[in-house]
Amino acid sequence: MDLGPLPEQLKQAVAFHGHLCPGLLIGYRAAQAASQALDLNKSEDEELVTIAENNSCSVDAFQQMLSTTFGKGNLIWRDYGKQAFTVIDRNQDRAVRVSFIGDRLKHAGPDGKVDREAFAKDLLNAPQEELFKVEEVDVEPPAEAVIEKSITCARCGEPTQASRTVELGGKLYCRPCAQEMGA
Amino acid sequence: MDLGPLPEQLKQAVAFHGHLCPGLLIGYRAAQAASQALDLNKSEDEELVTIAENNSCSVDAFQQMLSTTFGKGNLIWRDYGKQAFTVIDRNQDRAVRVSFIGDRLKHAGPDGKVDREAFAKDLLNAPQEELFKVEEVDVEPPAEAVIEKSITCARCGEPTQASRTVELGGKLYCRPCAQEMGA
Repeated sequence: MDLGPLPEQLKQAVAFHGHLCPGLLIGYRAAQAASQALDLNKSEDEELVTIAENNSCSVDAFQQMLSTTFGKGNLIWRDYGKQAFTVIDRNQDRAVRVSFIGDRLKHAGPDGKVDREAFAKDLLNAPQEELFKVEEVDVEPPAEAVIEKSITCARCGEPTQASRTVELGGKLYCRPCAQEMGA
Repeated sequence: MDLGPLPEQLKQAVAFHGHLCPGLLIGYRAAQAASQALDLNKSEDEELVTIAENNSCSVDAFQQMLSTTFGKGNLIWRDYGKQAFTVIDRNQDRAVRVSFIGDRLKHAGPDGKVDREAFAKDLLNAPQEELFKVEEVDVEPPAEAVIEKSITCARCGEPTQASRTVELGGKLYCRPCAQEMGA
């Protein structure tokens, strides 16, 4: 897919995601829209939270551009199958929901096959208001992550986060061991 | 936390994660161990798969260094609370499980409080075999992602991934709308 020279921020998102595709471009433009609406910087820790209503390529742009990541716990997935994202800024106590209103089928031929490159060009260049609905919303941010102590599984001997252990006959086991023991 | 000049690959992982912390360092060294064991490059698409047995900071290193990401579907989370990671390479049909065997409590004072900087230095500099058990394993890779058609929710009008719609009285709704309607 050749879209010509890419903006620096998009290049970085592509490097993270591994390739350029329409899904990543939806996320790139959506994360930009959220950033502009709330005047955001990257989330050093858990200041920002993204609630993604899908688990597709677009989410990687939110991870890379806003640092709302799976590992930090400030990326929350709701399995609704929608290209919609709510970004919460704990510091400002504000949130915005960005939902995709563009139409990939506009780029489908008579055979129903979508021209991915034409769709991608449109996603890169179309005015934001043609691609997204952006609305300020009222959402409660989730609790922040906590560090838990580790417990050694009495069967496999591997250290296991305390809240993920299972008690059987007075001993603590990890979930896979407990399952193999019939729990 | 000042650990001196960082290796370039770690700098990039820190830029993605937003900060340097012991958790990210566990992931950084674990992803390196997996890469070396299987001679891996970053996953352009879904060639590699990471099965992470936790959802903590360490996972972000696997996302950034191997491009096994939430958005591409080649990051799979098993909620076992273990610092263990299985990386599958579909091309080689090989997989390796890397599990952390280091001890953070080695860096705890008499009050039980862990010296995070001492722990981080250890994670950065200790020989790999003191930190991880690395074993080749036999794991079936998951199916690759597919693109589904969108269906417009009959209530909110938002496009929704077909498999995430709910049928009520002959009409198709998105999950949040179906829930609000009492389904």
